This record gives sequence, C-alpha cells and structure tokens, in this order.
Amino acid sequence: MNSRLPISGDAVPYRLRLPGPTAVPERVLRALARPMIAHRGPEFLERFRDIQARLKPILGRTGAEPHLFAATGIGAMESAVVNVAGPGKRVLIATNGQWGPVFRRLAEAVGAEVDEVVTAPGEAVDLEGVERALKAKQYAAVFGVHSESSTGVLTDLKALGAIVARTPALFAVDSVSGLAGAEMKQDDWQVDVVVSASQKALMCPPGLALASVSDKAWDVIQRDDRGPRSYFDYRRFHPNSEKGEPTYTAPVSMLTALHESLMMIGEEGLDATLARHRRLSTALTAGAVAMGFTLFPKAPTSPTLVVLETPDGIDAIALIDRLADGYNTIIAGTRFENLKHRMIRIGTMGAVSDGDVLTDLHHLAGATRDLGGRPDETAGLAAAAEVLAG
Amino acid sequence: MNSRLPISGDAVPYRLRLPGPTAVPERVLRALARPMIAHRGPEFLERFRDIQARLKPILGRTGAEPHLFAATGIGAMESAVVNVAGPGKRVLIATNGQWGPVFRRLAEAVGAEVDEVVTAPGEAVDLEGVERALKAKQYAAVFGVHSESSTGVLTDLKALGAIVARTPALFAVDSVSGLAGAEMKQDDWQVDVVVSASQKALMCPPGLALASVSDKAWDVIQRDDRGPRSYFDYRRFHPNSEKGEPTYTAPVSMLTALHESLMMIGEEGLDATLARHRRLSTALTAGAVAMGFTLFPKAPTSPTLVVLETPDGIDAIALIDRLADGYNTIIAGTRFENLKHRMIRIGTMGAVSDGDVLTDLHHLAGATRDLGGRPDETAGLAAAAEVLAG
Repeated sequence: MNSRLPISGDAVPYRLRLPGPTAVPERVLRALARPMIAHRGPEFLERFRDIQARLKPILGRTGAEPHLFAATGIGAMESAVVNVAGPGKRVLIATNGQWGPVFRRLAEAVGAEVDEVVTAPGEAVDLEGVERALKAKQYAAVFGVHSESSTGVLTDLKALGAIVARTPALFAVDSVSGLAGAEMKQDDWQVDVVVSASQKALMCPPGLALASVSDKAWDVIQRDDRGPRSYFDYRRFHPNSEKGEPTYTAPVSMLTALHESLMMIGEEGLDATLARHRRLSTALTAGAVAMGFTLFPKAPTSPTLVVLETPDGIDAIALIDRLADGYNTIIAGTRFENLKHRMIRIGTMGAVSDGDVLTDLHHLAGATRDLGGRPDETAGLAAAAEVLAG
Repeated sequence: MNSRLPISGDAVPYRLRLPGPTAVPERVLRALARPMIAHRGPEFLERFRDIQARLKPILGRTGAEPHLFAATGIGAMESAVVNVAGPGKRVLIATNGQWGPVFRRLAEAVGAEVDEVVTAPGEAVDLEGVERALKAKQYAAVFGVHSESSTGVLTDLKALGAIVARTPALFAVDSVSGLAGAEMKQDDWQVDVVVSASQKALMCPPGLALASVSDKAWDVIQRDDRGPRSYFDYRRFHPNSEKGEPTYTAPVSMLTALHESLMMIGEEGLDATLARHRRLSTALTAGAVAMGFTLFPKAPTSPTLVVLETPDGIDAIALIDRLADGYNTIIAGTRFENLKHRMIRIGTMGAVSDGDVLTDLHHLAGATRDLGGRPDETAGLAAAAEVLAG
C-alpha cells in the first residue's frame, strides 16, 4: 500500500465500476426491500406482466412473451443451448472473445457437434467466415455474442442475423452485457433467441435471467426433442409466459427490482437510455485515450463498457489494486493471460452518470500517477467533457 | 364478496401465510437493500464463507462446503438429479406426496430408469417397501423428501438413511421446506445430497438454492460421467465451494439476505429455532382441530407447515378466497384434485411468531363463520395458547 494516499479509502464512497455486476440504483434497492407477497397472487402477477410488457420494446420483440427465471448469465446462456442445440446437432459459434468458448463448452456438454469461427480478441466477428461455414455445412443453430464484455466489441447482429436467416439455422444471441444498454432489435435482426441477465444494463443484482424466443425458434423447440432439459426447458416456460405467469416459484424480490429498473428506463425513455450509454462510453474512452491509455477494441465498440490498455510502464493489475485500495473504485482486469498486465475494463452500463465518467478519469489519473505514470488528466477531463457536452 | 366484512382488507396488514414463499423479516429485507458490492471482492467473499460456515450446523454437516447458486427449489432438486442420476442409471424414489413425482420427472428427463415406492398422500414413506425394492434391485440413488409440503408429513430420514446406507446407492433428499425448520442431521443420517432453497424456513425471497454433498457422493460424482450437466454440475461447484468462492456470478443481494437470516437463526440458536417451529405448528394444529378442522397427515408431521381438512360444509377454495379478501391473510390450497375442496395449508416456517398462530386461528374462525360454519374460536385459541405456554 502506498503511504501517500491522496484520499482515504473510507472517505470516498465505494464505487462499483465493474462491467457487471453494476451498481444498483437506490430506487431498485428499495424495491428489493419491499415485503414479500404471494408469487401467484394478483398483485404479483400484474407486476410480472408489466415486466414482460416493458421488456419487449427493449428486446425489439413483438411476438411471444419473454421467459424470466432464477439463474445467472451462464444459466441464461445454457438455456439457449439446451433448447436449440442437443445431442448430435451441429452448431456454429461466432467467437471473438471469451463468451463464444462458453457457448462451445455448454454445447459440447449436451452432445452437440461444435464448429467455431474465431477472430482475435478485440476484432469483430468474422462475418465472411460465418457465411462460408454456413455454405459448407448445415447447422441447427448459430451462436453469437452481442456485447463481448471481455474485449469491448459490439457485434453487428443485423448483418450476422441476415447471414444466418438465409439458412435453416436458428440464431441465438448472448446479450447479457448488451440488453438495455446497446440497441437490440430481435425481430428486425432476425435473432431467434436472445438471452440476458439482470446484473448488467438492467441494473439489478445478479440472479435473474431472461430469454426471448422467436416464433421460428419456438416451432423448432416444441416439436424437436433434442435431449435432456428440465429447469431451462422453454417448452415448460412457454405456456406460462404466454399467460403472463412465472414458471416455478417466482424470484419475487428480484423481479420486483427488475420492475423498478424497467420503470426507470421507461421514464428516461429507451432511446435516451441507449444514447446515454453511447455518450458515456464515448466520453470515458476519449478521456482515457487523451490521458495516455489505448482503446483495446479494433472494431465497433459496445456502449456498455470500455476496455483499455494501460500506458507503457503501468501494470494493469497494480492499477486495479491501486484504484480499489486508494480510491474505493472497483474496476476489472482480464482473463486473457497475455493481456493481464495491460488490460483494464470499466462498465458504462446501468445507472452510470456523467459524474461517474469524470470521477473514473480522475481516479484513473490519480492511481496512474501513484504508480509513477504521467497521465494528462487535464486533457482527459477536457476530452470527456467535450463528448458529454455534445 | 361478503358485504359484512368484519374488518377491512386494507385495515389489517398483508399476511403471507403460505407454506412458502414465506414472509421475509424486516432485517433480511434491509440486507437485500444494501448497495451492490463486487462479487469477487474481499468483503463479499468473507460474507460468502460465513454463510457456508453458518449453514453447516443447520445441515448437520461437517465435511465439504455447501454449494450456493441462483435457482428455485426445483432447480435445487434438478441439481441433485443430474449429479447422482443419469442416462441408464436406475434410481428409486420414495414418494408420499407431490415432490416424489417431481423427482421422477427430473430423473426421467436425464434418461434414468425410475422405480417408485408410493404411499398415499398424508402417510409416511413406506420404509419396508423401500427396503424390499433395494433388496430386489441395485440402484444408483434413492430420492426422498424431508418435509412433504403437499401433505404436511415429515419423513424419518434417519430410518430411511440407514436402509439406503446398507446398499451402494446414494441417498438424495429434498429438504426445500425442511431445512432450518425441521431437524437435519446430514452426517448422522447418512444423507448424501441435501438440497434446499431460500424461500422457506431460511426466510429469504425465492431464487437461491443450495446443495450439500457427502464425501461418498462426491467420490461417485467426480469419477462418474453420467451425462449432460452444466449449470448444476457439482464438479464445477466443488473446487470453488471448497475455496469459499461462488461459482458463476454470485447472486450478491440474495446471498446477503441469506447471511442476515442465518445470523438471526444464530442469535436465536438453532435448537431454539427448531423448537419454535415445532411449538408453533403444534399450537396451530391444536387450535384448528379444537375449532373443528381435521389434521390431514396420518403420520408424523412436518414442523414447518400445517395441513388441514376443512369442517363439513366449508369449501376450502371459498375459505382461502375469503381469508385473502376479508382478512388479507394468504394461505394455500392443494393441487390434489380430489382434495381441493377440503384441504388448506398454512406455513409455520421462517419468521413466524406466537401472535401469527393466534391471528391465523382468529382469521380462520372469522372466515369460517362468514361461510356459514360454526367454529369454536374460544376453544381453538385456548388450545393453541396452552401449547404456546408449554
């Protein structure tokens, strides 16, 4: 620990600035604390149906109702896999970071034959590679990642969806760190399954998952017995979701929290919410780059997080520790072994404000100086402020 | 709606008196509302480890650490099934209510061969039948239900465990509505897998599940690849749980709530908590019987709920509706089609007090009178008070 702490770790508020789980707004915390009510009673069912109704424009979905269930993001991803993949089915995964391989592991676990089109971390999905693969073989499903939270890259789902839609394959997308922060147009983009989770741009605690299934996918899922699936079986969810009822015992408090966060998004307006995420991520990026950091992605970026390489001589692990110890600011590193001394990741999803971005930059500059760097904080704040003003 | 409402539905507090989800104590609600913290940071990990430590005496377990994961009770049950059953494995289910058939469905979904020893609802598990079945065939696992919440019967797990332990089969138990309300001695009773969930006697909202695995079961699970299992794979949980770390993104708020409820149980003392559940369920039963209701179970009862048949001429569905509409008191009916006009179920698990039992009886008497019955409320309250004083 550095002895010349610029500020006491206790004198500044704890700042959860991970790319998820994100800080939970006070209003949502208060919703969590509401007394428990009967999960099949009229008051709760009304809330459940309003959640479904509020999610659909965020999904860009007009058809069947979304499913909601207790699970983490991995559970949401597994739900997509067990419903559209299965023993002996051939599936294709468009990988450009850490979440494609998770789809691979889950698909292999259910006995699917898995092909992968891989591009380097930080690059966009290889659309031509996917197109070639789909011409060479027939696939039951293609899996993609909307916001690759390991690299900060946003996938062009419209383009990928158009490619997949020319084949009989279903298109399943992990939008765990995308939904409600990055635009999603499930219907227009021909995405058959969108899965997401509560703890990212939906700004709730972790533990609640959702899945939205196209009519095309539902046709396949309901007639095709692909293998073992119970808890995550969309055939079990579908009739309940259509009636506006939860499947299993509803995670009442988590759903009440989600209801509150969806009302906040409704009050801000979805377009404004999405624009805010883009503005904040652009501002944080501009500020950090002006201070001497390097933007990691070499492709269109996700508006829900910023992934940076540290200035020369600044060790990322030391910087992350310094931010936590000296500034009470919790950011993330990477699981890419070769990047762990250079990569940092900061969320811009959920309840993040202009002030958070400026504070991030101020603390990044301070911690960088503490480690012997010479960040140009003035330039950084000016660059961010210019974007924020824009 | 009856026009001569004795009290306004709005003038009395909403009383969640289901056999789960149960009312959540104010302290636990406040814990839910604590700000989100990093799920891999030191503050949260300390809390996680304390949860594990506090659960073990409640489980009667000294060995490996329990697993905690986002799921409902069904998810907890499925986790037991996918880890100890599997394609082609033969399993035996001791059924005496609604939860045995759920184990059957889950086991069949993973391709297991399922035998069932069935006794009538309200009766105890057929121990001799289980013993005969285990002599006739070899089973990979036997499934039992600790507290059969559909009938109010408590299973003699010590006896069942001793029978199973004479064979190579693993013994897996659903203690969703048992744990922390009914005594559990996992080690002593030779239970290999105990699964439970947050929303019953653990007095948290629904959405958090747990599993505790014996060394004998872990030996089998880790070397035996039974088939597809990912989200619920104990092989994935085990190394993390042993380190005191969550697997996947931890459901931070739900775990913080569980931590608070476990501290409350710790302050009351586990023995006192268990004794309170027994005292309250005995008092509620005595009071209801004195008022003209009939105890449904014909076997030892679970201390976490009371299952009653209504007096002649009182329709259970009408009574439940009347309690909700006129008394703001939410109790449960049954899914047994032939009992739905006679059976009611009331929880005595979790944060339930003497006053709740007296209030239950007062409202039961009022609602019964509203429907034309003649309950002896004085006798009911006296009988309950005598037990409570005892």
